[in-house]
Amino acid sequence: MAADGERAEGVVDFQTEPSRYRHWKLAVDGEVATLSLDVDENGGLFPGYALKLNSYDLGVDIELADAVQRLRFEHPAVKVVVMRSAKDRVFCAGANIRMLAGASHGHKVNFCKFTNETRNAIEDASAFADQKFICVITGTAAGGGYELALAADHIMLVDDGSSSVALPEVPLLAVLPGTGGLTRVTDKRKVRRDHADVFCTIEEGIKGRRAVEWGLVDEILPRSRVEEKIAARVDDFRARSPRPEGLKGIALTPLRREIGPDRLRYSAVAVEIDRATRVTTLTVHGPDAPPPAGVDGLVAEGAESWMLRAARELDDAILHLRLNERETAVIQLKTLGDPALAAAHDRFIDENQDHWLAREIRHLWKRVLKRLDLTSRTLVAVIEPGSCFSGTLAELAFAADRSYMLVGRFEGDNRPAATLTLSAANFGPCPMVNGLTRLETRFLGTPEAVEAAKAAVGRALEAEEAEALGLVTFALDDIDWEDEIRVFLEERASFSPDALTGMEANLRFGGPETMESKIFARLTAWQNWIFQRPNAVGPEGALRRYGTGQKAAFDMGRV
Amino acid sequence: MAADGERAEGVVDFQTEPSRYRHWKLAVDGEVATLSLDVDENGGLFPGYALKLNSYDLGVDIELADAVQRLRFEHPAVKVVVMRSAKDRVFCAGANIRMLAGASHGHKVNFCKFTNETRNAIEDASAFADQKFICVITGTAAGGGYELALAADHIMLVDDGSSSVALPEVPLLAVLPGTGGLTRVTDKRKVRRDHADVFCTIEEGIKGRRAVEWGLVDEILPRSRVEEKIAARVDDFRARSPRPEGLKGIALTPLRREIGPDRLRYSAVAVEIDRATRVTTLTVHGPDAPPPAGVDGLVAEGAESWMLRAARELDDAILHLRLNERETAVIQLKTLGDPALAAAHDRFIDENQDHWLAREIRHLWKRVLKRLDLTSRTLVAVIEPGSCFSGTLAELAFAADRSYMLVGRFEGDNRPAATLTLSAANFGPCPMVNGLTRLETRFLGTPEAVEAAKAAVGRALEAEEAEALGLVTFALDDIDWEDEIRVFLEERASFSPDALTGMEANLRFGGPETMESKIFARLTAWQNWIFQRPNAVGPEGALRRYGTGQKAAFDMGRV
Repeated sequence: MAADGERAEGVVDFQTEPSRYRHWKLAVDGEVATLSLDVDENGGLFPGYALKLNSYDLGVDIELADAVQRLRFEHPAVKVVVMRSAKDRVFCAGANIRMLAGASHGHKVNFCKFTNETRNAIEDASAFADQKFICVITGTAAGGGYELALAADHIMLVDDGSSSVALPEVPLLAVLPGTGGLTRVTDKRKVRRDHADVFCTIEEGIKGRRAVEWGLVDEILPRSRVEEKIAARVDDFRARSPRPEGLKGIALTPLRREIGPDRLRYSAVAVEIDRATRVTTLTVHGPDAPPPAGVDGLVAEGAESWMLRAARELDDAILHLRLNERETAVIQLKTLGDPALAAAHDRFIDENQDHWLAREIRHLWKRVLKRLDLTSRTLVAVIEPGSCFSGTLAELAFAADRSYMLVGRFEGDNRPAATLTLSAANFGPCPMVNGLTRLETRFLGTPEAVEAAKAAVGRALEAEEAEALGLVTFALDDIDWEDEIRVFLEERASFSPDALTGMEANLRFGGPETMESKIFARLTAWQNWIFQRPNAVGPEGALRRYGTGQKAAFDMGRV
Repeated sequence: MAADGERAEGVVDFQTEPSRYRHWKLAVDGEVATLSLDVDENGGLFPGYALKLNSYDLGVDIELADAVQRLRFEHPAVKVVVMRSAKDRVFCAGANIRMLAGASHGHKVNFCKFTNETRNAIEDASAFADQKFICVITGTAAGGGYELALAADHIMLVDDGSSSVALPEVPLLAVLPGTGGLTRVTDKRKVRRDHADVFCTIEEGIKGRRAVEWGLVDEILPRSRVEEKIAARVDDFRARSPRPEGLKGIALTPLRREIGPDRLRYSAVAVEIDRATRVTTLTVHGPDAPPPAGVDGLVAEGAESWMLRAARELDDAILHLRLNERETAVIQLKTLGDPALAAAHDRFIDENQDHWLAREIRHLWKRVLKRLDLTSRTLVAVIEPGSCFSGTLAELAFAADRSYMLVGRFEGDNRPAATLTLSAANFGPCPMVNGLTRLETRFLGTPEAVEAAKAAVGRALEAEEAEALGLVTFALDDIDWEDEIRVFLEERASFSPDALTGMEANLRFGGPETMESKIFARLTAWQNWIFQRPNAVGPEGALRRYGTGQKAAFDMGRV
């Protein structure tokens, strides 16, 4: 698979924990956590590049994503997170350029997607858990370094004559800041577009007062009073925090996971990879016991509670497929279990939304489902007897590009007919990146269909009723079932993967756009385009020539 | 410039008139116009392909754009436009595949941009001039053919067992429907996303009742009553039309234009192309006489009236530069003339918005300015003594990526200092594709700055005041002027054109997205990406292999 000049990429594992971090340090002190970036330059995920100047690769970001997640589950008492560099003269030089220069197109695209999701997770923590991020910049925050800062609620820049923020990608590398930078500059920080134009074309970036005047940072710190000012700002955020006091976390214990050559097996998720058909089946197993009696029970179960376990495992499975199984054309989404039990867990989480852990579990599902929406594989939900598409799990069907539901039973199968059950989880708490629920997006033109679905909450809907309500694409009886699905899967696997990626990226996100959806659509799509262009990645392109002492040679035609 | 397998492309001329049409027929009968597509298969813009089955290339679309424009200015009495095919068994097979297969990347991207603008012009006529479009589909409307129909207000599909609508690009060609199809399916017609998924993967498309049920068309026409049903629907639209009766049009006379090797000269627009620096200077000349005394005078002046003339010429100049001058890196926007006279014309148009022609002139400026926003060249406004950036012309400065304004005078120049004058034109009638005015977009984070600008309407603002109001990027005195601008132009011309295109496409459109902006951002960006991918355009890609009898060979990795 490795094209000319591209490095062979090994399997990427998204699981880590603080004791194994090589690049970040997470220190928690009561209500304040400090996340220090101290990249081990020899700790790159692949050979062939050194992570100098706190530059990062996917491995560095996996640790950050892990830390942000642990802050919410393991350290719920934390109200303020200070992000800073543990190195003296640099905050972060951004994505490592040699890593990018040698990476396959697919790796670059997936790398950017994941780092974007991590930045969004920081903003999600701020918006929904009131864990506010303060970013302190000493030294240079360039490219992805500044984009990391942009995810924070508050950016402090040391005013020492050399600390600066910069997005030097265009002048230096002939690519875009690919981790939301351009969108956050215009849409989050609302920097005037002409100032943004100037900023994004100055290699050395902007420092001091002008960075504040243009809205690139929130304040500058006089060199002599850096720590004092940070402490005051932290106190400020703590004092204003609506977050409850004294919450005790739960441990996010290691996933139970076995990786085989053609399968992944977790406690509640199973993945079967069929390399011949290029169809992967991802099955979420429903709970086999009722939910705990109350929130104390939920806390006692901790990471073992079914809803949390299933979400974490599903998240890991999606990431694994994205990065390590690029030849998968279609992910068949299935569930297996007792729909009533799955519904009971869903209801339990819903009824306890005043408890921090139940809330966090919901938000985690929201993020995992967004990750699914943004996965560039055809998604099809297959709803058969024995399945449990209830509430949150029904979102899997609504995330799918299409769904097939069996009418009645298979011959010789005694299990009851498949059902789909809606719950409160389908009507608000799990919006897509476009800000709408999956049902609202589905029924953009017929909002009354959302109301009709709402009226069916709690009822186990059989195939024909689900089809009549517009909740599934096809309700088929067992005579057509196998053939229809086989033909669909074969056909889908025969199409150009690129065209499918583009088509799905458009059809999945109808209606409004948000900053988040703009990052994944407008910005990412342009970056993907540029990541193909010879001016960036050709042998004489800027990414390849960076650091060689030779200038890039550009085809100067504008398209 | 032609890469492997690409055809050399000649100069494209965007000017035409009905008597010269080879592909469309425009027939006007009182309040109803009929636009019939009857593509001359030997009338392609470039050699090497035949426009079979009413397929189109840029030349066909230039005629359509011309017709839509003439309907507004020359035939203002028209309330309903019927779009149909003059060929028996096909409505339109979409963009010609051999044309696409042989076109350069830049031509493909510009072709799609222009056809999108033409579809938007149809929707603009419906929204702002109440000229409603009814599309009658007999035979196949495939790909761009269906996308053309999607621009209409009402789609009628003949129910004859073979007429169908289809978006077969993904299964057939490994590209996307590139003229807004995916976005209009989800956002305009609000087709359910899973139905859209099915529809966009069925080569042969959908016909009859299902096309109505899924919302792909508005009605089906029984074969025996086609003309009768069309006539009834036309009457329907006419009866509901709020458009005033009996308006008489003006002639859009041929542009006065001279094209030299390094310049274009119109009556009110001049373009100077400096091939060494790759900087093109586009100057709009202000009026040299006051506006007419009243609307009768405006009608009498017709296409000679300065506001209309300047808009048409500017539009042609932008299109010429986009297609024919691809090595231009920067367009310097200048104006020359008496600011008070320009302001008077602007005010005249504004005060006569109850007259159809004044309204049409405003809407034309709106469309031309949108075209400028979407032009992939760096835009810089240079505001010097002698210029007339007043009202509508000030929008040129706000469309620019940045602007430079001289403080005071040049040594030895007796003309008064440069000024910038705002008018009502800057606060509503000329929104960008994101639905906001350029000033609202500029001041996304500081809406109070829009109010401050509004308070300055009508005042000739000198450089320092304009800068204080945030209306220009840099106010410089004559000591710095030449060097600053020269360094900027040199630097900009040295950057990768691709990276600049991506950066500008992001920074120009902060804030909300609309269907229109989604088409140019999300959809177009994905298409541009796919237009680079070997699965589409490589020697074994689907676009190249189409019609050869050989199947495309795909790299099946998903990115």
